[in-house]
Amino acid sequence: MSTTNSPLRVAVLGSRGKVGREICRAVEAASDMELVASVDAGDAIEALLEANAQAVVDFTHPDVVMDNLDFCVRHGIHAVVGTTGFDDERLATLRGWLEASPATGVLIAPNFSIGAVLMMRFAAQAAPFFDSVEIVELHHPTKADAPSGTARRTAELVAEARRTAGSAPMPDATSTALDGARGADVDGVPVHSVRVRGLVAHQEVILGELGETLTIRHDSLDRAGFGPGVLAGLRAIDDHPGLTVGLEHFLDLP
Amino acid sequence: MSTTNSPLRVAVLGSRGKVGREICRAVEAASDMELVASVDAGDAIEALLEANAQAVVDFTHPDVVMDNLDFCVRHGIHAVVGTTGFDDERLATLRGWLEASPATGVLIAPNFSIGAVLMMRFAAQAAPFFDSVEIVELHHPTKADAPSGTARRTAELVAEARRTAGSAPMPDATSTALDGARGADVDGVPVHSVRVRGLVAHQEVILGELGETLTIRHDSLDRAGFGPGVLAGLRAIDDHPGLTVGLEHFLDLP
Amino acid sequence: MSTTNSPLRVAVLGSRGKVGREICRAVEAASDMELVASVDAGDAIEALLEANAQAVVDFTHPDVVMDNLDFCVRHGIHAVVGTTGFDDERLATLRGWLEASPATGVLIAPNFSIGAVLMMRFAAQAAPFFDSVEIVELHHPTKADAPSGTARRTAELVAEARRTAGSAPMPDATSTALDGARGADVDGVPVHSVRVRGLVAHQEVILGELGETLTIRHDSLDRAGFGPGVLAGLRAIDDHPGLTVGLEHFLDLP
Amino acid sequence: MSTTNSPLRVAVLGSRGKVGREICRAVEAASDMELVASVDAGDAIEALLEANAQAVVDFTHPDVVMDNLDFCVRHGIHAVVGTTGFDDERLATLRGWLEASPATGVLIAPNFSIGAVLMMRFAAQAAPFFDSVEIVELHHPTKADAPSGTARRTAELVAEARRTAGSAPMPDATSTALDGARGADVDGVPVHSVRVRGLVAHQEVILGELGETLTIRHDSLDRAGFGPGVLAGLRAIDDHPGLTVGLEHFLDLP
Repeated sequence: MSTTNSPLRVAVLGSRGKVGREICRAVEAASDMELVASVDAGDAIEALLEANAQAVVDFTHPDVVMDNLDFCVRHGIHAVVGTTGFDDERLATLRGWLEASPATGVLIAPNFSIGAVLMMRFAAQAAPFFDSVEIVELHHPTKADAPSGTARRTAELVAEARRTAGSAPMPDATSTALDGARGADVDGVPVHSVRVRGLVAHQEVILGELGETLTIRHDSLDRAGFGPGVLAGLRAIDDHPGLTVGLEHFLDLP
Repeated sequence: MSTTNSPLRVAVLGSRGKVGREICRAVEAASDMELVASVDAGDAIEALLEANAQAVVDFTHPDVVMDNLDFCVRHGIHAVVGTTGFDDERLATLRGWLEASPATGVLIAPNFSIGAVLMMRFAAQAAPFFDSVEIVELHHPTKADAPSGTARRTAELVAEARRTAGSAPMPDATSTALDGARGADVDGVPVHSVRVRGLVAHQEVILGELGETLTIRHDSLDRAGFGPGVLAGLRAIDDHPGLTVGLEHFLDLP
Repeated sequence: MSTTNSPLRVAVLGSRGKVGREICRAVEAASDMELVASVDAGDAIEALLEANAQAVVDFTHPDVVMDNLDFCVRHGIHAVVGTTGFDDERLATLRGWLEASPATGVLIAPNFSIGAVLMMRFAAQAAPFFDSVEIVELHHPTKADAPSGTARRTAELVAEARRTAGSAPMPDATSTALDGARGADVDGVPVHSVRVRGLVAHQEVILGELGETLTIRHDSLDRAGFGPGVLAGLRAIDDHPGLTVGLEHFLDLP
Repeated sequence: MSTTNSPLRVAVLGSRGKVGREICRAVEAASDMELVASVDAGDAIEALLEANAQAVVDFTHPDVVMDNLDFCVRHGIHAVVGTTGFDDERLATLRGWLEASPATGVLIAPNFSIGAVLMMRFAAQAAPFFDSVEIVELHHPTKADAPSGTARRTAELVAEARRTAGSAPMPDATSTALDGARGADVDGVPVHSVRVRGLVAHQEVILGELGETLTIRHDSLDRAGFGPGVLAGLRAIDDHPGLTVGLEHFLDLP
């Protein structure tokens, strides 16, 4: 990526999946990128070399993503990864590989929605200024897990910010309650999971103190919402060699 | 109340309580009413007769409300009652007293907020047209009970409407959940109770089906919100002799 | 439709359009209906007769819908119509045709979203109980008209309900305002049109009086949201001979 | 303020006004402060010296605030000021006075609500990541100005952040519109002003891009909401000599 102004040569792994197709579309629509290879199950990954790809986007499967990344890092191809299943062991393995290829960057992000990333960041920043913080996440009723991963992560970040600030426990005078009425407790933060037909993926963080509340809400209505976050990752990856976890480190925020 | 156009002569029982004071203010501000007596603990109820009251508003205490109503019904004074604690036995007693005074009307209402009454009514009417219905109620953190009484009542009305319509069970694919994440189950309707400093009293009913949701939200920011409902009760009480439970029967709704 | 329990034989006109495809899918998925013909531009409408269709759904174009309806009414086929462009003259023509075929029903509906229909109905019913009513409609930024047709219709219904009830003008002490700050005035009801990328089609009706507000919000996230309304129209059409304008007349509401 | 741990000696100017009373209450309730003087119209400001006040809170009137500040700065008393009416000339005068008393701090803040300050900050930070930003502010109908000062300020900050980031103009295909439907244009940002009885002071900033929206909402339900911001100002004032405009500079934000 030494030449400036020539479009970034991007390949998409998992290109026929639901998200992969949206990513292909977004890369093709970006004037500063070129989609040079689309690879899915059954295709040879060597296509990346033939196409001279500078960076890949990986939305594949936990079973194959490590092989993909091994190949990319060995060939000095940056990777922006939305595939799930990364535990400490996998991250350590990746760091080892990257030591041998110090100019290569890998971004692992559990969420490529810029709106969701900002919601989590703002919620954690605001939390120490308020007595109470609760989270309501709302999804379609075919979702298997409650709370959502984003809600759990938000609650953990809020709890950590409150611990660091030495916040007092949240006020709650509830003395008579039905089971479940006050939500799931995630690290001390109540989380409520609404499942209603017609919803897609939504979350509200409600922060309150005497006389006022601040509500930060994210609505994700379409998988196309991942596009801008993936493009932001691709644009910044050359400036971030090594392993990065979380899209927020690539956004230019104070 | 034979003379038309002369203002209705109203007395307030519990006139020095938080709600009572608001009611006194509302009656005084209404051009078609006159506040002729304000009675609270320690005052003699005979003041109603001296003041020639045509109707009382009672926001007192479960311990004294039956004595108050006994006195009013015996003297043919209508009563609009927001005091709680009415069970089937008390209602039966009241009906007995009213048989002996057939022109007198008593309205017992658990909620004098017109907005809350409409929210419950609309939620129940809409419920059969949607696959899913969930309730989120949000209150200040000094509230003792969860869910709120209004949320429980709304859930019961929604459940009843769905039963009558033969609605299928709500879709919910949740297979991994933290305790409480999916709210309290009230008659099959999930209810979530948020307690955040700075909130007053709020409720959202979220109804959804394929591709769309309908949300009915009530925000009660001030006890003054009871005023219009109590006035509506007072204005209609002469036309509703006998016992009525629920303000909705006095509102002119289709 | 004399035999009970045999599935209703439905044809879709405009079957290859965006909405038409969703309707075909919804009819096929309904256990009490059978999709017997799919007709679009270039196809012969006589297919309806060959297929022995009992009812059609028409989501075509103002240029062809009258010809379609002429054919259907002459052959005693019910019609549920979402095509736009019906003025008083067209409605009068339709009524004339239907006089000659008194058992046939035609439903013309500007909006088949049950949620939107209920929102409008509830807003009009609630309006007389509140001092203020304003409408905020929120859509994607490629929408050409502001306010939306649904918002205009809602405002008209609210204004009519307030006139009938003799409501006082809404309170508004605004003395210094930028142009446009207080929205468009539709029949005395302020309407605000938000256009933000990522939105689909949303509307909030905010009603308020002393101390409380009632908010009725409709979110339409997907064209699939028309399906249930069209099916409701098809199920009721045999019981509603003649011309009906507006889905609300077919919903079993008090 | 050389001694640590002894409570800060605070005086309130404008102590009998609506906000002043809340501030007195908040200072009295704070364990690290002492309310040593309450001054209002007709009282002698020399009471500050007799009470040995270290800092004042001023919620008075544009006509008297400059005299108050002249007195405070001359006597080395810090000031936290919520009174309005500061233009560039007044700020320059203040800076001149402070040069002669370099250890004294004056904080002028148009808004002491921490929630409102965070809303504005987050909106400006997020704005460059989204295609569209619109503001809906909602207030009681006795408010004279539209849009609200907070909405105007938010729009200006959003516009500035978008200019700095080189954001493209917001998408808007509106071709047929009623006057006012698309809100007031504040520096290129549409602002909509809702005035509904029962509301207090609320604002929503809606940011959107392909497939997702982020909404930041602030609800101010009670003047008590100014308390925590004023206390935060008092606690930090000794560390901020000179003139500071805007509470955000005193909050410990990244």
